Amino acid sequence: MVKVTFTSHNKEIYCNKGEKLLDVARDAEIFIDAPCNGNVSCGKCKVRLIKGKVDTEKTHHIKDEEWNQGYILACNTKVIEDIDIEVPSKLSASMHGMKIEGSDKKKDKEVFDRAKKIIEENNFEFKTNIVKTYIEIDEPTLDDNISDIDRIERYVRNHLGYDEIDFTIELLRKVPTVIREDNFKVTITYIKKKNKITILNIESGNTENKLYGVAIDIGTTSVVICLVDLYTKEIVDKASSGNAQIKYGADVIHRIVYSTKKNGLKELNEAVVEETINPLLDSIYTRNSVDKDNVVSLVVAGNTTMTSLFLGVYTDFLRQEPFIPPFLKSPRLIGKDVRLNINDSAYVFIAPSVASYVGGDITAGVLSAGIWSSEENVLFIDLGTNGEIVFGNRDYMMSCACSAGPAFEGGGISCGMRASNGAIEKVKIDKETLKPTLTTIGDVSPIGICGSGIIDLICQMLLTGIIDRRGKIHRDIDNERIIFNEYETGEYVLAFKEEYNLDQDITINEVDIDNFIKAKGAIYSGASVLIESLGMDFSVIDKVYIAGGIGNNLDIENSILIGLLPDIEREKFIYIGNSSLVGSYLALISKDAKKKLQEIGSEITYVELSVYPTYMDEFISACFLPHTNIEQFPTIKSKLGE
Amino acid sequence: MVKVTFTSHNKEIYCNKGEKLLDVARDAEIFIDAPCNGNVSCGKCKVRLIKGKVDTEKTHHIKDEEWNQGYILACNTKVIEDIDIEVPSKLSASMHGMKIEGSDKKKDKEVFDRAKKIIEENNFEFKTNIVKTYIEIDEPTLDDNISDIDRIERYVRNHLGYDEIDFTIELLRKVPTVIREDNFKVTITYIKKKNKITILNIESGNTENKLYGVAIDIGTTSVVICLVDLYTKEIVDKASSGNAQIKYGADVIHRIVYSTKKNGLKELNEAVVEETINPLLDSIYTRNSVDKDNVVSLVVAGNTTMTSLFLGVYTDFLRQEPFIPPFLKSPRLIGKDVRLNINDSAYVFIAPSVASYVGGDITAGVLSAGIWSSEENVLFIDLGTNGEIVFGNRDYMMSCACSAGPAFEGGGISCGMRASNGAIEKVKIDKETLKPTLTTIGDVSPIGICGSGIIDLICQMLLTGIIDRRGKIHRDIDNERIIFNEYETGEYVLAFKEEYNLDQDITINEVDIDNFIKAKGAIYSGASVLIESLGMDFSVIDKVYIAGGIGNNLDIENSILIGLLPDIEREKFIYIGNSSLVGSYLALISKDAKKKLQEIGSEITYVELSVYPTYMDEFISACFLPHTNIEQFPTIKSKLGE
Repeated sequence: MVKVTFTSHNKEIYCNKGEKLLDVARDAEIFIDAPCNGNVSCGKCKVRLIKGKVDTEKTHHIKDEEWNQGYILACNTKVIEDIDIEVPSKLSASMHGMKIEGSDKKKDKEVFDRAKKIIEENNFEFKTNIVKTYIEIDEPTLDDNISDIDRIERYVRNHLGYDEIDFTIELLRKVPTVIREDNFKVTITYIKKKNKITILNIESGNTENKLYGVAIDIGTTSVVICLVDLYTKEIVDKASSGNAQIKYGADVIHRIVYSTKKNGLKELNEAVVEETINPLLDSIYTRNSVDKDNVVSLVVAGNTTMTSLFLGVYTDFLRQEPFIPPFLKSPRLIGKDVRLNINDSAYVFIAPSVASYVGGDITAGVLSAGIWSSEENVLFIDLGTNGEIVFGNRDYMMSCACSAGPAFEGGGISCGMRASNGAIEKVKIDKETLKPTLTTIGDVSPIGICGSGIIDLICQMLLTGIIDRRGKIHRDIDNERIIFNEYETGEYVLAFKEEYNLDQDITINEVDIDNFIKAKGAIYSGASVLIESLGMDFSVIDKVYIAGGIGNNLDIENSILIGLLPDIEREKFIYIGNSSLVGSYLALISKDAKKKLQEIGSEITYVELSVYPTYMDEFISACFLPHTNIEQFPTIKSKLGE
Repeated sequence: MVKVTFTSHNKEIYCNKGEKLLDVARDAEIFIDAPCNGNVSCGKCKVRLIKGKVDTEKTHHIKDEEWNQGYILACNTKVIEDIDIEVPSKLSASMHGMKIEGSDKKKDKEVFDRAKKIIEENNFEFKTNIVKTYIEIDEPTLDDNISDIDRIERYVRNHLGYDEIDFTIELLRKVPTVIREDNFKVTITYIKKKNKITILNIESGNTENKLYGVAIDIGTTSVVICLVDLYTKEIVDKASSGNAQIKYGADVIHRIVYSTKKNGLKELNEAVVEETINPLLDSIYTRNSVDKDNVVSLVVAGNTTMTSLFLGVYTDFLRQEPFIPPFLKSPRLIGKDVRLNINDSAYVFIAPSVASYVGGDITAGVLSAGIWSSEENVLFIDLGTNGEIVFGNRDYMMSCACSAGPAFEGGGISCGMRASNGAIEKVKIDKETLKPTLTTIGDVSPIGICGSGIIDLICQMLLTGIIDRRGKIHRDIDNERIIFNEYETGEYVLAFKEEYNLDQDITINEVDIDNFIKAKGAIYSGASVLIESLGMDFSVIDKVYIAGGIGNNLDIENSILIGLLPDIEREKFIYIGNSSLVGSYLALISKDAKKKLQEIGSEITYVELSVYPTYMDEFISACFLPHTNIEQFPTIKSKLGE
């Protein structure tokens, strides 16, 4: 056995000689970014050897300067003796670490108003089917000695008008003591179902005003939870963090592959349930003095893979042709089934999926965007870790999935990060000096770049002539910010480490740009083919909703300029942020909305792009800035001087 | 820390100085009989100190000879240094240890026939609502890529005619891999409910003939399980053992008290689930090559306390006036709720209770005895650890509970044991020599005495003049088998240890006899008051069913002679053994019987004896052999020479 000391985390762990450093870090529960899951292809698992020797090799991901400083790839390194390792902390923390972000009252109000609008426009009832009622039950005597459960049932029959009560074994275990704590004065929480009620919770005394629900958006990259007061229907608090599954791969495909390994499915399930969501719940409960037993309703939205892994269901057949999801609509579930820190008997609803790569995040998004009741033609684009597109109106809805990868959430980009504090969200480059002006989320020092920032950056690099329309850096520019490494890969420095006291420079290189161009090309070509399959073109679109964690400052003009979005009237575009969370919130506060969400799962038709004949050609044409056929971008043509 | 070595079990355990030896043994998972749960009142936790010193005191439970040999009470002993302890093994093992008894084909046939008779007489359907069907589902293609669950549902809708399928999360987790093991050829097990089915199991290939259920009788003293082939409805195997809860007290009251201690409820729950039933299930599965996942139905019968502890429900209000049970009918439960080694999604049914001290063992017994459909007046007596009585016919049923204690199952009697191999079940005493002739179950050496043996023994002791009608041993008998200890308690030796190579003599003493007389007095007076409360007397009885673990060789004549049973025509008495198990078995193999069992819970009226004015007088009069009023026993009068 040899000892590995992670100096950055004050952690020591013993391992066998010859073990892979990345695995050792995972055993020590230290998050190291590994989007490619240890295949030595992405170069993200860079760590620094401080002391001792290892068995490793230099790759093109490591610059000479870094190599001299001790930087190695954890996935490409075997431990052979006692070593000290430093894990670059800032990026790692912002990308994956727990990060509770306070609720933004203004934004919460917007979400509430948007949800309320959908509810009002569609004449939905602004209420759930969960009720909380304080009751005073007759105390038992020798002459009236029916059982505790029968006593509750008798009260319910005589005073609330239901014939029967139903309850779980967990609740039964609480009843005898709880009803006696305050002399048979209790508050019951229940779901109505015809002449029957299912009791979800029982508490002593009057606790009628403590009734909560949680909406969760499980993204491949980030997870957001939203605590809702089911009494007022208002958002109490929100919290988000990176999805801890990220250590097993940045995209769903890598995670699915990992899930097939021994204990892989269990590890992935625990990563999202126990390492991501439960800590978020606990922190939000503490901050708001909420008891988990008062959380009696849960709505979860996520893509098909995320939903399956959340429930611990085997996902590998999603990945293998003919790409079969295990389920689209989940069975009836209660709190304990999903092992979350909520009431064991809580009513759990999982937003339905449409197909293997169009999941509950999309149906929830469609619910909140109101496409299903719209007379206008709506194009809905979710720029998440994958890209999903829905096109339609109240009469029909078509959907497809594009293998866009995680670029819009900062994945697959050297210095990419999700849209949270410290992320560069806007970039302007001076045409003369090539010096960038950066705007970061939270107005703090930059630590990385998020989706909206990358769009600005690539657009600016194109307009200032740093890159050509293929995304390649011009070889003849002489500027301190343009660097070519020993493998001739060009790189543009957004922020020198000295400027902001960083561990490393913040840069974008040609590989990053290529990744991004492929991502935007997948989206554009996907939307194009989807609409074309109906015999239409982009001119029929009345509205474009853009959803996803790309960042609030998405610049539509720039997005069109680089060919991510079609060149149509700018006022048709609306950025709607995390529409999956809004949809989940809607389903949480209105039973009619929940019912509609379930229906949307069946109403959307899925189009499999990979078998669609013209898709590949369209995609290749779209892997250009903005497109090989510039005629598709008439308003851009002049800007590029063509 | 000091070390305690249990030489008899080859176990060592470390404990703190000053810890109670009984607690140390429990920590070491060594069963020591402690019916009074460590109150130094029953004297059953006798162990032998082999080496070392302890802090203990001699009590009247320990004879001088025993004291000299190192016998001490574990509950009255503190460990102060390293010691070696021997736990008398034979009794302990037979009373509490795991003991798998092979199925008796003849007896099983009797049970089957009895159940079949009830089914036929009442026009019940001889089938359950659980179905197992082999199906061949279309394999998915790119053009037919609906989800696995939708694919199963589509098959069910098109070929089996149900609209909807319902399933648990456990099942969902199995589906993707199981359906592909044999190319979408699977066998599904399901419960029908109107136009919907709930899937309990899915297996690859054709396994239609593997369909099992388990009936369990959880007695306070013993637990019996019965594996049933739900295809043929026949009993595959049976197994039984002592209830491991016995280490926390012999009767329900001691256990309830223990359940209120820290972790007490959990320990009692685990004792019956993990230490008693699961090992029985595992052994029976191994013996019959049955896979636990194929066990999809469970019926459990037990008294109200046993049922509550089995489900982990707090029981203390059963014990406190006004004696309120937590529940009578259990909620809907599935396998994983009860943590038994059966299919996680198995359909679990708990026989309903009538009141705090008339439980599901009685409703199941009543089901199997057919009282509810009888035109004749039936008196049903369950001689279990408690005594419960039901009187009635098809028009009405009344019930009461008698605090008889565990004497009929050998509890509270020095050498008492349950009716299993080695138990003395018949006794004859020679009037001259006072030497007994013993018949044991299994024709092996005696190791203790069971209920039927005790009845014979007391009857014989009365008839041979060893005891008087109060149960006291005549002081003037000079015989080696009659011994008086230093506290002047008389004792009769049934078997000298030298005769059978035992650790100790098998004896019955005046305290045992007194315990037994109180038990039989409670039963007789209970039955008497119950019938009297209806304005009737014993003459109206057409049939007396005697149930319980008292032993197959119950001698009716002797039982009447000692005043346990009323002095009516002998042919009216029928010993029906473990009627609770037969009732559970019935409910397992016929859905109509299960429905009837649920109804019986509501149809039986409970009479609380403790508040019935004449009960105490009746009880005191019955604490005599046979009764203070010999006129109630006209046929016995002459035999006793009166």
